[in-house]
Amino acid sequence: MQLNDLPTPALILDRQRLAQNVSRMRARAAQFGVSLRPHMKTAKSARVAELATGGKGPITVSTLAEADYFCKRGFRDLTYAVGIVPAKLDHVAKLQRDGADIKVITDNVDVARQIAARGRDLGRKFRVLIEIDTGLGRAGVLPDAPELTAIAAALAPRNEELGAELVGVLAHAGHSYHSHSVGEVKKIAEEERLGALEAALRLREAGFPCPVVSVGSTPTAVHAERLDGITEIRPGNFVFFDLFQAGVESCGMEDIAVSVLASVIGHHRGRNHLVIDAGALALSKDTGANEHRPGTGYGLICLPGGKVPLPGLAVLDVHQEHGIVAHAKGLDAISPLPFDKFPVGSRVRVLPNHSCMTAAMYDRYYVTDGGSAIVDEWDRVNGW
Amino acid sequence: MQLNDLPTPALILDRQRLAQNVSRMRARAAQFGVSLRPHMKTAKSARVAELATGGKGPITVSTLAEADYFCKRGFRDLTYAVGIVPAKLDHVAKLQRDGADIKVITDNVDVARQIAARGRDLGRKFRVLIEIDTGLGRAGVLPDAPELTAIAAALAPRNEELGAELVGVLAHAGHSYHSHSVGEVKKIAEEERLGALEAALRLREAGFPCPVVSVGSTPTAVHAERLDGITEIRPGNFVFFDLFQAGVESCGMEDIAVSVLASVIGHHRGRNHLVIDAGALALSKDTGANEHRPGTGYGLICLPGGKVPLPGLAVLDVHQEHGIVAHAKGLDAISPLPFDKFPVGSRVRVLPNHSCMTAAMYDRYYVTDGGSAIVDEWDRVNGW
Repeated sequence: MQLNDLPTPALILDRQRLAQNVSRMRARAAQFGVSLRPHMKTAKSARVAELATGGKGPITVSTLAEADYFCKRGFRDLTYAVGIVPAKLDHVAKLQRDGADIKVITDNVDVARQIAARGRDLGRKFRVLIEIDTGLGRAGVLPDAPELTAIAAALAPRNEELGAELVGVLAHAGHSYHSHSVGEVKKIAEEERLGALEAALRLREAGFPCPVVSVGSTPTAVHAERLDGITEIRPGNFVFFDLFQAGVESCGMEDIAVSVLASVIGHHRGRNHLVIDAGALALSKDTGANEHRPGTGYGLICLPGGKVPLPGLAVLDVHQEHGIVAHAKGLDAISPLPFDKFPVGSRVRVLPNHSCMTAAMYDRYYVTDGGSAIVDEWDRVNGW
Repeated sequence: MQLNDLPTPALILDRQRLAQNVSRMRARAAQFGVSLRPHMKTAKSARVAELATGGKGPITVSTLAEADYFCKRGFRDLTYAVGIVPAKLDHVAKLQRDGADIKVITDNVDVARQIAARGRDLGRKFRVLIEIDTGLGRAGVLPDAPELTAIAAALAPRNEELGAELVGVLAHAGHSYHSHSVGEVKKIAEEERLGALEAALRLREAGFPCPVVSVGSTPTAVHAERLDGITEIRPGNFVFFDLFQAGVESCGMEDIAVSVLASVIGHHRGRNHLVIDAGALALSKDTGANEHRPGTGYGLICLPGGKVPLPGLAVLDVHQEHGIVAHAKGLDAISPLPFDKFPVGSRVRVLPNHSCMTAAMYDRYYVTDGGSAIVDEWDRVNGW
């Protein structure tokens, strides 16, 4: 099958770019002597996880649906990196019975007590990381907060065998996404390292075990200069990258491994725009990349076989199933678009703003080796 | 099963509100003597379509995946209201063979020629509406454009039996979404009517058949004062409504029929926010409602059994699986949130900004009759 045979919109994955992205990140982890536990929230695909871990290695997941999917496909070493609530512990216990070594995270003393209690009730041991806030300000305890040791104590109140087990600390410097220079990313990466490490050292000094010191976001994983004391990194987006990551200099345009194949479905010469069949659902409404690159709109346009965006064109507006392609400088730019180069029925590729959001709209990847042949079709898991 | 038993995040549909919304729109269509051909791009659900049409009545679809899904479930009178491209005609022909009377739309002379040619090649007749632009400026020909009759002529160049058949004109006044008063919506509705009608009259005067004169968006369908000359309306969002439609006064808050059930997964007292497990994927990144109601963020918060939003709280930020609930007036508002009312593990309902986008993230509706019991589970179709 060829690109031209696919129904549009369709999600295209360039396996060569994926392999390069993965290989670079694996080399970085090896260079720093840390484990790579890639976050599968972006790809949600067993085939991508196999490449990213070199087999059925350790991964991070963002939903219990991902945990189920990956566990069934032989990935057993899982960290579910979204704060756990007690109502989800029975599902976690089921995953344990299915063979998963699944770690959960919390930043809350009451939840820690309930984890330990539920573990005892079920005759199980839940393995827990304490979430640390190193500046993102989303979730997590501060490295110097009194709650840190209180959570650790609540997890194993009488040092019992069952119930819960503290396995470490986990930080995510997601605020690196809003950096405006590589220097700033490096600074945030070092704060992420130091914050996670400070929390780990405090726990160890208080007599708690803390074997795992986990950090990671794609920008900090790409740019960190030191990882001393860190045991694992958890970047996710790096497998695919996107225009946002290009904007924050985690990658180049030529590293972006996913794109949306779309058909030109109309010419609106009066408004000087093309209409494509990739709209708000096919691309997502994420406009984050415009923070770093104004004029990116909802995505940049490549030719169907193109590797880099055509200069000056962007998806400037979206409706549910319509994308409006116009001059990147604005919908009222007056020089006429090259309509004849894009007849109705012709095709384009759209580089996504945010690959995590765009890929989530599809149930499969059409895989290429960079050319026009579809060499494989990979599934992915969505939902919760 | 009760709301409390559901895994979160989950999409909840209040069947009573749905029934009221549908009943009001059906009454409006009857009052004006027009057909209601509800747009299934919002609900994408056969159960909703049955209620909205009173059986297996005429519907509008936004994807060929919807056309397949509804055709299999006995809905045969379909209008696919996104500009067709020649590569999709074989799929349309397959739907015809499966028993569907499917209408397609175009605004392009070249495409019209290709539709007629492909129809002749296949020994079929494609049924076509010409898309009219009455001010949205997305797609469609202007009512007074010369292309209008050229497209009509291209569809049946030698008045042959096979190939293509012009069945009418279709307009969508989506710019009503950006109105700032009901008066403005009424004006746009009248322009939509007059534009569609002008196109139909021009076609009829030129000797072309034009039995169908189709208009519709939810705001114009709710507020139109005249529909003389119109044969059908195609609102879609009205089945569920959302905060955007409440903002543009298509509905009240108490009419919003879908919401996202979420768990509180964290307290960040230092940043004065709650974290819920409904983030960018569970809610979508649509922030359109803020155009009319600043402070809506990514959604408003209700208690789990709540019918209307709690004053002053909104989802002000989202990450992929995290929603940040804070004072609607801003993330830096200083009065402390009522953390004790929302312990970690407790649940909230989030009213969506844009129900078409939010519902698209789920594969099913958990149906209630307004109470806490889940009385049914309805599927929906996503993707393309």
